Amino acid sequence: MAKTVNAPRGMRDFLPQDKARREHALSVIRGVYRAHGFDEIEAPMLEDYSRLHAGLGGDNEKLSFSVLKRGLTADDFHAAADEGVERIADLGLRFDLTVPLTRFYATNRAQLPPVFRSIQIAPVWRAERPQKGRYRQFVQADIDIIGEPGLMAEIELLTASSQAFAELGLTDVTIRVNDRRVLFGLLAHCGFEAEVHDRALITIDKLDKIGASGVVEELEELDATAAARMGEVLEAVAPKIAGEGIALTREEIVAALPEGLGGEGVTNLVDLGEALEHAIPSNVTLRFDPTLVRGMGYYTGTIFEVAHPASGSSVGGGGRYDGMVGRFLGQDVPAVGFSIGFERVVDLIELPENDGPASIALVYDTDVPKAQLMSIKRELVAAGHRVRLEKRVKNMKAMLDRIAGEGFSEFANVRPDTLSASDLDVRSQGDR
Amino acid sequence: MAKTVNAPRGMRDFLPQDKARREHALSVIRGVYRAHGFDEIEAPMLEDYSRLHAGLGGDNEKLSFSVLKRGLTADDFHAAADEGVERIADLGLRFDLTVPLTRFYATNRAQLPPVFRSIQIAPVWRAERPQKGRYRQFVQADIDIIGEPGLMAEIELLTASSQAFAELGLTDVTIRVNDRRVLFGLLAHCGFEAEVHDRALITIDKLDKIGASGVVEELEELDATAAARMGEVLEAVAPKIAGEGIALTREEIVAALPEGLGGEGVTNLVDLGEALEHAIPSNVTLRFDPTLVRGMGYYTGTIFEVAHPASGSSVGGGGRYDGMVGRFLGQDVPAVGFSIGFERVVDLIELPENDGPASIALVYDTDVPKAQLMSIKRELVAAGHRVRLEKRVKNMKAMLDRIAGEGFSEFANVRPDTLSASDLDVRSQGDR
Repeated sequence: MAKTVNAPRGMRDFLPQDKARREHALSVIRGVYRAHGFDEIEAPMLEDYSRLHAGLGGDNEKLSFSVLKRGLTADDFHAAADEGVERIADLGLRFDLTVPLTRFYATNRAQLPPVFRSIQIAPVWRAERPQKGRYRQFVQADIDIIGEPGLMAEIELLTASSQAFAELGLTDVTIRVNDRRVLFGLLAHCGFEAEVHDRALITIDKLDKIGASGVVEELEELDATAAARMGEVLEAVAPKIAGEGIALTREEIVAALPEGLGGEGVTNLVDLGEALEHAIPSNVTLRFDPTLVRGMGYYTGTIFEVAHPASGSSVGGGGRYDGMVGRFLGQDVPAVGFSIGFERVVDLIELPENDGPASIALVYDTDVPKAQLMSIKRELVAAGHRVRLEKRVKNMKAMLDRIAGEGFSEFANVRPDTLSASDLDVRSQGDR
Repeated sequence: MAKTVNAPRGMRDFLPQDKARREHALSVIRGVYRAHGFDEIEAPMLEDYSRLHAGLGGDNEKLSFSVLKRGLTADDFHAAADEGVERIADLGLRFDLTVPLTRFYATNRAQLPPVFRSIQIAPVWRAERPQKGRYRQFVQADIDIIGEPGLMAEIELLTASSQAFAELGLTDVTIRVNDRRVLFGLLAHCGFEAEVHDRALITIDKLDKIGASGVVEELEELDATAAARMGEVLEAVAPKIAGEGIALTREEIVAALPEGLGGEGVTNLVDLGEALEHAIPSNVTLRFDPTLVRGMGYYTGTIFEVAHPASGSSVGGGGRYDGMVGRFLGQDVPAVGFSIGFERVVDLIELPENDGPASIALVYDTDVPKAQLMSIKRELVAAGHRVRLEKRVKNMKAMLDRIAGEGFSEFANVRPDTLSASDLDVRSQGDR
């Protein structure tokens, strides 16, 4: 007996039913985003090693898989011991779709529209320690708008994504919204010096995990007085966030923030709430969350994160990252992105009922001439059916049960005297 | 000015128009194969290093990209200098979809139907020297039937693939068919000893490149007398193959082969021709080619290769490989596969005309309230249109030209007094 063989650690095989659900979800997402005027592009799944380690990917860079150069000699391997992996690896598997997008944009800018709305739906790889819900290969579904400095970009992203969630059948989605500028204003208001703001945000980002008291404790290492003030702010907003949430209106936003806090960040959020009020489907609720940080350091303005009651972690998120695309171009280019947490979403959805022509299994006797059988199959396929050929077996019940599970809701026997599809007695699985 | 940035060598970026054509082709292929009862699956794009170097992939194994282990030390790198790449690489990027399929089948057999019809459409990687038409990342579109020893497998594969070519709009496709057993019979007939048959096939496979005289010259190294006889056979069939081709009927097959050659291989081909005669679309011509070899050593029976007049090399091919799947299972499992040369096919096809609701660009003034603009967009999307927002610019002609190229065949102005979609004056690009 051969040894058990498995997919590589942390990576998954998708059986037909799983794959069908995934393809359904991909096709819904792709269709909605295209309808909203976005264009799908594709970058190679590998990028240059140096680009994947240029500091744009945050902690994910450390999780990237490196791909060996070709034709290496013993000397090269010895040298790698001193000089590091980059001596023998010139490529790596991408760990997200954002770094490749910035590279793609820099490479192809002349052939792209001035405001470029991109769709990327494709796998990425991270050498995570395998655990439930964390995989080493997983799909990301990103849209980005590059070249639009104004709020229209955020509005278009959130409108399109909201509709994607709706069409996927997620009936109860909450999008929490914040603005990095509101966060920085809040930190300044509490008394944190500008040079500790980034570190303070990393701490506040842990609110879900360590709670308000944990956050305050960590912030005390930066500034005890400011930490205490932040504690009061968190205490004041916590019940609002935990309850109905804070609507994305000027009144509720201002009421949720310490008096006098305002500025561009707040105006931005108010305008966003106003524009979106009638543009997003009714299954989506917009909420202001002044404690929302989002991990990546590159966000500069609006940030958003999507929650669904059946998923413990977020099912999507994104934000504005105006500084990043420019790094490859030597000039600033505004950009906003939204990523659907595809692997989480696909676990929440069901394949819709097939509302087209039925899937039919043709159960044939082996003495049916092959040409005759294929001609009947051809007729049914031409009429829009999905057709599976199944050789007659002794245990018909077991076979019909199996193909019912495989999605064939109808079946028909093909005997030597079945000359065409019109001779078939097509029966429903339910009627047998 | 920043340096020019490019995709990694031999790999490609796909701009929106290219990507749309690719997705269209993928969706046609996927749809036809599903209609014919095949099920799509997905395996990880990485497989264990050892599995990719187990001798199943022929020369392609040497072209595979290896992926470094994590947490390597200086000692590991020094050791790799002596022990080779496998000391520091535990994974690799797959170089085809067949090796992963055999692994997938061995892993998941208990959950798959006894006759498993798989679809795999996904990228593979080979460290080829980049040149026109050869890429280091490219898509393969494979179907395979595992578990069916009889000719029905070949018949289903060729029927489904023929229809896929037809639906892609390839109106003049020729499928050349042969059987490895016919080839071995031919070699024996000419007098080649069994132990040189594999080497003789490698030579005959070069017929296209080095011609009949080149083949005979190379075969002389194995057996001069047999080589001369093979020369006569090749000379006799060459005009038939170059002309109308040899129909897949008993009469023409027998006439094309030296007298007395027959056996299972010929019976198989005759049965195949008979079964397919009315099952394949009229754009596909079936031809017997006794000189067809197909490179891979693992083929055991029927082999096929697809030609299209606009493509210099084949646009698809496959065959029966009964010995291979069993290697992971410790028992023989019959299998037949067909692979569409996706990268070549996609270059031959055009995106079909959009026959649904038009794609509309909304050209808006920046003083239109955002909520109003989004509400109009939403109405149009709900009515099935693809909608792109475009800010009004000075050079409207240049903008309209650009979006025409991007597929937006209609456009409409949105002014502050455009309150709903019914107020729009939608114009065709052709009418401006």
